[in-house]
Amino acid sequence: MRPWARGCVDPVSDFKTALAETADRVTVALDALLPRADGPEKTLNSAMRYAALGPGKRLRPFLTIECGRLVQADERSLLRAACAVECIHAYSLIHDDLPSMDNDDLRRGRPTVHIAYDEATAILAGDALQTQAFEILCDEETCASPAAAVNLARRLAEVAGARGMVGGQMLDMAIEEAGEGEVDIGLITRCQRMKTGALIAFSAEAGAIIVDADKDVRTAFEGFAHDLGLCFQIVDDLLDAVGDENLTGKRLQKDADQGKTTFVTILGIDGARDHAQRLADQAKEHLEIFGSQATRLKDCVDYVLERQS
Amino acid sequence: MRPWARGCVDPVSDFKTALAETADRVTVALDALLPRADGPEKTLNSAMRYAALGPGKRLRPFLTIECGRLVQADERSLLRAACAVECIHAYSLIHDDLPSMDNDDLRRGRPTVHIAYDEATAILAGDALQTQAFEILCDEETCASPAAAVNLARRLAEVAGARGMVGGQMLDMAIEEAGEGEVDIGLITRCQRMKTGALIAFSAEAGAIIVDADKDVRTAFEGFAHDLGLCFQIVDDLLDAVGDENLTGKRLQKDADQGKTTFVTILGIDGARDHAQRLADQAKEHLEIFGSQATRLKDCVDYVLERQS
Repeated sequence: MRPWARGCVDPVSDFKTALAETADRVTVALDALLPRADGPEKTLNSAMRYAALGPGKRLRPFLTIECGRLVQADERSLLRAACAVECIHAYSLIHDDLPSMDNDDLRRGRPTVHIAYDEATAILAGDALQTQAFEILCDEETCASPAAAVNLARRLAEVAGARGMVGGQMLDMAIEEAGEGEVDIGLITRCQRMKTGALIAFSAEAGAIIVDADKDVRTAFEGFAHDLGLCFQIVDDLLDAVGDENLTGKRLQKDADQGKTTFVTILGIDGARDHAQRLADQAKEHLEIFGSQATRLKDCVDYVLERQS
Repeated sequence: MRPWARGCVDPVSDFKTALAETADRVTVALDALLPRADGPEKTLNSAMRYAALGPGKRLRPFLTIECGRLVQADERSLLRAACAVECIHAYSLIHDDLPSMDNDDLRRGRPTVHIAYDEATAILAGDALQTQAFEILCDEETCASPAAAVNLARRLAEVAGARGMVGGQMLDMAIEEAGEGEVDIGLITRCQRMKTGALIAFSAEAGAIIVDADKDVRTAFEGFAHDLGLCFQIVDDLLDAVGDENLTGKRLQKDADQGKTTFVTILGIDGARDHAQRLADQAKEHLEIFGSQATRLKDCVDYVLERQS
């Protein structure tokens, strides 16, 4: 029995409330930032809203806001930067789900965008959500300082493009097609760092970029994001292998069905669990420089480790 | 017989030489900016290079460089902004050509990206080229002033996203699917302004944004780009109807085959030609404030009007 089961506050449950509150704030802000679903091209705008405003944990925006608070970044700047991050994440999910990529029909418990609309609309909605992210970051409402805005947008471009997220998706498909024994843990780790780690790193660093924080703060967020991102991916692989489809809201057992090499196939279930735990511990250690202020972020690490969806 | 046929320099021929020289400079600069085609995700980088470095008129980069020179913007800034414009243009062509959109197998005389590679690679290469454009604009090498960089990137986002180019492509597909009589010239004009006009406007305005030019200069470029862009589209529709596939390097008669309403179906061949001529004249008038310095841009207008490809 966990220590908080008798009368104490369960930190993960407390964290979930905080996460849900942030998710709501981000959704409201995004709703105001996205184009209205009217005019002759309204289907596009409607698909963008379906993808970006639908249910979701909003873990990346949460990181942006919580890490940004540790460096006293402006709340409004953080909320808008968080919206930009969510736009990039939503765009990547739309495109990854397409028939020519992962061919997924279910996402967050709902039909994917190309199922709910059509393929062309899905591609364009993803395209426009990517643009929207840069539009938000470069809007003068986001950062008072143009230097901060341009640094944010440049860093987002670095993590989202060919050397980051998009390159990682390319690599992920190559790994899927590779034969048994052709993929080692180095390649899988590179893929994870590019595909999911890079945007998680940006999410954690955004506030530090906005306030132009010291090198040691940047390094702490970088290390934290690196370990948290890798932990997140290993848990994702574990959920695909042993998770519950009703809880995750997406198709599972896809990796096994495709004979794909993952952290789980290389490390085994127990090995992967141990590795995820080790990374979670490391992620928390990076936050030590912030002392007790980082409690909520440490709870976030536990949540990532223990999540069922 | 044209006046320059006896001994004089043909301005359109002279212009074509200048256009080709600029195209070469832009291609060399882009070659250096795009990720190398190596590493495990090299297919992505190779597809990006195939799309962005292949043959092309580079008309938009030409506008960026020539308009920017009229306001004495830094040459290096202009060349890099021109590369960003070409990245957005190349990405839009890749995605527009996809089977679920215009389903084109030929572009600039070569197989389209999803034919030369595959559909997933084409989608990702387009995605990464869009990101690349923002990465270039936000790199400190492009603009000495962060304020200029952020203004450039914000304006590019406005013209490229849901309210601009992507929205225009959505509208274009809706026009294709609409029945006879459901589409009027207002809707077609809106579609053109969003789909092609907006990026052409950015191309012309980039230098003025970089130097933070006066309102009258911005207005002149805006008017010029508006008329040139619309002229360009009408000529495009004319080429599709009566052009030569060997010269254009892409499939023609597509509009007629699909029963699509265009400027040509509404205005007729002669009416469309007259309208294009009128727009070309207007475009030149907007350049009067620059006097003889704008000669090359006026030649560009003639080229757009008279082009066969």
